[in-house]
Amino acid sequence: MKFERTAQDLKSAARAGVLHTEHGEIQTPIFMPVGTAGSVKAVHQRELETDIHAQIILSNTYHLYLRPGTELLEKAGGIHRFNGWNKPILTDSGGYQVYSLAANRKIAEEGVTFKSHIDGSKHYFTPEKVMDIQRSIGADIIMAFDECTPYPCDYNYAKNSVELTHRWLTRCIDRMNSTQSKHGYEQALFPIVQGSVFKDLRERSAEFVASQNQQGNAIGGLSVGEPHEDMYAMTSLVCSILPADKPRYLMGVGTPENILECIALGVDMFDCVMPTRNARNGMLFTTEGIINIRNEKWKEDLTPIDPILGSYASTFYSKAYLRHLVINKEILGAQIASIHNLTFYLWLVNQARQKITEGSFATWKDEMVSKVKRRL
Amino acid sequence: MKFERTAQDLKSAARAGVLHTEHGEIQTPIFMPVGTAGSVKAVHQRELETDIHAQIILSNTYHLYLRPGTELLEKAGGIHRFNGWNKPILTDSGGYQVYSLAANRKIAEEGVTFKSHIDGSKHYFTPEKVMDIQRSIGADIIMAFDECTPYPCDYNYAKNSVELTHRWLTRCIDRMNSTQSKHGYEQALFPIVQGSVFKDLRERSAEFVASQNQQGNAIGGLSVGEPHEDMYAMTSLVCSILPADKPRYLMGVGTPENILECIALGVDMFDCVMPTRNARNGMLFTTEGIINIRNEKWKEDLTPIDPILGSYASTFYSKAYLRHLVINKEILGAQIASIHNLTFYLWLVNQARQKITEGSFATWKDEMVSKVKRRL
Repeated sequence: MKFERTAQDLKSAARAGVLHTEHGEIQTPIFMPVGTAGSVKAVHQRELETDIHAQIILSNTYHLYLRPGTELLEKAGGIHRFNGWNKPILTDSGGYQVYSLAANRKIAEEGVTFKSHIDGSKHYFTPEKVMDIQRSIGADIIMAFDECTPYPCDYNYAKNSVELTHRWLTRCIDRMNSTQSKHGYEQALFPIVQGSVFKDLRERSAEFVASQNQQGNAIGGLSVGEPHEDMYAMTSLVCSILPADKPRYLMGVGTPENILECIALGVDMFDCVMPTRNARNGMLFTTEGIINIRNEKWKEDLTPIDPILGSYASTFYSKAYLRHLVINKEILGAQIASIHNLTFYLWLVNQARQKITEGSFATWKDEMVSKVKRRL
Repeated sequence: MKFERTAQDLKSAARAGVLHTEHGEIQTPIFMPVGTAGSVKAVHQRELETDIHAQIILSNTYHLYLRPGTELLEKAGGIHRFNGWNKPILTDSGGYQVYSLAANRKIAEEGVTFKSHIDGSKHYFTPEKVMDIQRSIGADIIMAFDECTPYPCDYNYAKNSVELTHRWLTRCIDRMNSTQSKHGYEQALFPIVQGSVFKDLRERSAEFVASQNQQGNAIGGLSVGEPHEDMYAMTSLVCSILPADKPRYLMGVGTPENILECIALGVDMFDCVMPTRNARNGMLFTTEGIINIRNEKWKEDLTPIDPILGSYASTFYSKAYLRHLVINKEILGAQIASIHNLTFYLWLVNQARQKITEGSFATWKDEMVSKVKRRL
């Protein structure tokens, strides 16, 4: 994997780049649609490519491990062959899901025991096992097994947790170094900076992570309920420490506003369930602001959802028709809104990239933030 | 509207034809995907056209009247403009839904009062009102308001009911003759033959319907639980009476086997929720037989769903991946299975049409029936 920086904004830490993987190039800054169980909900793989212009999608180790399981994924020749998405894929390590979804979890030095949220079956994740699972799944970028602290979190818990995450990181790297790709292409491990909202912990964690000299680095444990100011402060601090020549991935972020602000702080990669989850509830992110399509206001609006975007879902269907579908709980409503929101997110990061390249990012960002956060 | 017969099978009553409407041609025999509320569930309009090769879809007066309502549909310029499906559309009259979905219904000579299944609001349908609603909706083919008898049904109830349906038909025709299309194109009214499974009632009803000299005729009140033999016997009887130079539409039928058998009896048009509803439960109709994709048997089957069909959903995704999606209740599972099943249904009627034209329908039909009904 190779990361090339192609432009640096002069008025912010924003930068543009290209991340080369064996499944293709990723133009950064980039947003990664979330396909938890190997499917971006309500979206066909063809639509991801042709309509949304996704360059990389994210899947989840915890979910894929439980179903369909590593045996079938290995037999298929890896996740790309299983789901037919032949461009880059990143898998989250499952750390966050073990804490947020699984029951009866017990964290120890060696690893975590938990019960499946699906059938209550007992499982045991260690850093080594999570690396092995991700070898079987076969994503291009795989994440270290960490503990994601909740918010709020007391200082001592956060301190012990970040230290455990660091010891686990060493074990993850050792396991990666002593094993090989199972599907014939390179897999890059991204370590994760933790430390909650405590400056000194974030600093130490960023320094430790940077010293591991992996091919990219991630910031975890943010967008878990803390004020935006804290998210931005921690992101800014960590970005100032993580090496500039490696891609930086801010996990689980966020709103269009969050993404623009964090691009300005030097982040290159984002993922979030928001565009798809909120789509299923009728919330649309558009180039003019946020629409709750269930509102009476849109009932007779026969204009396209968002003509600026030029994609099928955003231009073919009207707001009134989409509202009718969402109110009637028609599956097509979720489909249209999901494609639309993802198209918008990918359009937004692509616009940011262009503005960075042209040298006009800072002004554009301020205008855009005020636009994308307003409620229509 | 004009119906041209292009071929007649010599060993059965099967025939091929072309139905010309102002929204395009329909090659018969044809299957019409059901889009109850103006959306074929889990399928984009683009997919209906490009992947499924649908030529006409069906919507429902009862549902569209309740939501979004005729005011909005008129404002949009009719259903085609509202949902973006610019090919032919047929609306069922809502008779069946008033009996199957609505609460507190009371049937009288003048019309039916009922409560909405959505919000319990009270409504009143008369034959005249249902014609007016269908004028507002603007389908190319609209159905008479009838009473659809349940199965089993005692003789006297069926007799009184079919007589009421006939009196209502006269009122529907009068209303159609005294009103005009609201959206600038022709709307054809199809009367409906009723009479449950009683030969004499079906005969009288078919004769009455035929004498009305409308542009097409329909057979209702079948596929409501009666044995297949009764369905075929009634269909055969009615087809022998309905004029050969008008299209014949068998409402709500059915399985692939039912469709092939009824094409052989002289039916030209079909609709059924089965391909989409069963898709959402993981049942696939394929060129080799019926698959319950939830079965363990398909867990590791990495072959395409049905390569014969050649469409995106049927060839791009594997059975194992589709099974994974269905087991995980991923929306994409419903999407793939729905497109696949509809593609199969349209493929089946198109094959039938070709065989009729080539003169080999009867032999092909028998082989195909034994194939399409077997469980894989």
